[in-house]
Amino acid sequence: VTQEEAVRRANAAFYAAFRALDVARMEDVWLREPYITCVHPGGPVLTGWGPIMASWERIFEHTFEVSISTADTRVHIGSDTAWIVLIEQIQSRSYEGITTGAVLATNVFELCGTHWYIVHHHGSALDHVVDENTGSLQ
Amino acid sequence: VTQEEAVRRANAAFYAAFRALDVARMEDVWLREPYITCVHPGGPVLTGWGPIMASWERIFEHTFEVSISTADTRVHIGSDTAWIVLIEQIQSRSYEGITTGAVLATNVFELCGTHWYIVHHHGSALDHVVDENTGSLQ
Repeated sequence: VTQEEAVRRANAAFYAAFRALDVARMEDVWLREPYITCVHPGGPVLTGWGPIMASWERIFEHTFEVSISTADTRVHIGSDTAWIVLIEQIQSRSYEGITTGAVLATNVFELCGTHWYIVHHHGSALDHVVDENTGSLQ
Repeated sequence: VTQEEAVRRANAAFYAAFRALDVARMEDVWLREPYITCVHPGGPVLTGWGPIMASWERIFEHTFEVSISTADTRVHIGSDTAWIVLIEQIQSRSYEGITTGAVLATNVFELCGTHWYIVHHHGSALDHVVDENTGSLQ
């Protein structure tokens, strides 16, 4: 496994946890350090394990089902820090109904031992809205 | 000069170029590589030197004057890659009048030789709008 492949897998694990709406799996992909940061679209900067995991828990609790695909993934790798820029195409079903949208994300990863962990996520809504052809989640 | 101080200086140089509306100075702070990326609030991912510099040129041409202060700056440094998360408080005067707002930014830097260069900028509008007490730019 090359380092690029390892970073892509860590990134895929982040989205797999998101898709599964599974906080335990989300905990596995983040580095347990006080300096980790997370920005959900339109929200403030959340810093540290507690506030970040609480935010995912809140999102997952209010979401019945979510479909996420990623596109335009650009990966760049340093010796111990890597960053990815990509587009998230998200369709989610919650109490508010079905919402569809695209989010532009920067994800930063850090190598700890032999494993890459996410240390920063910055998501922001794109003006562009995904064309909705299907009425149901995939 | 510690590496953290060097990264902070590179970040300060980026905002100094922005404040000065000076494309030549903006060119000095970016790494001249095809993989560099830049996201202006609400915009698409721009990749590579040409599109990124053209975007700054366009912004600078349409802006008469800009005042930017940065707040809540968090710096984290790897051996050859560093990332900063901060809030930009921007007041700008253009053909459209004076606009005031806050932008949340992720900036990624890469060490090349002895110098840190910006390789990724992701800015997104914050819902929060800066309180406008002054009618003029500082």
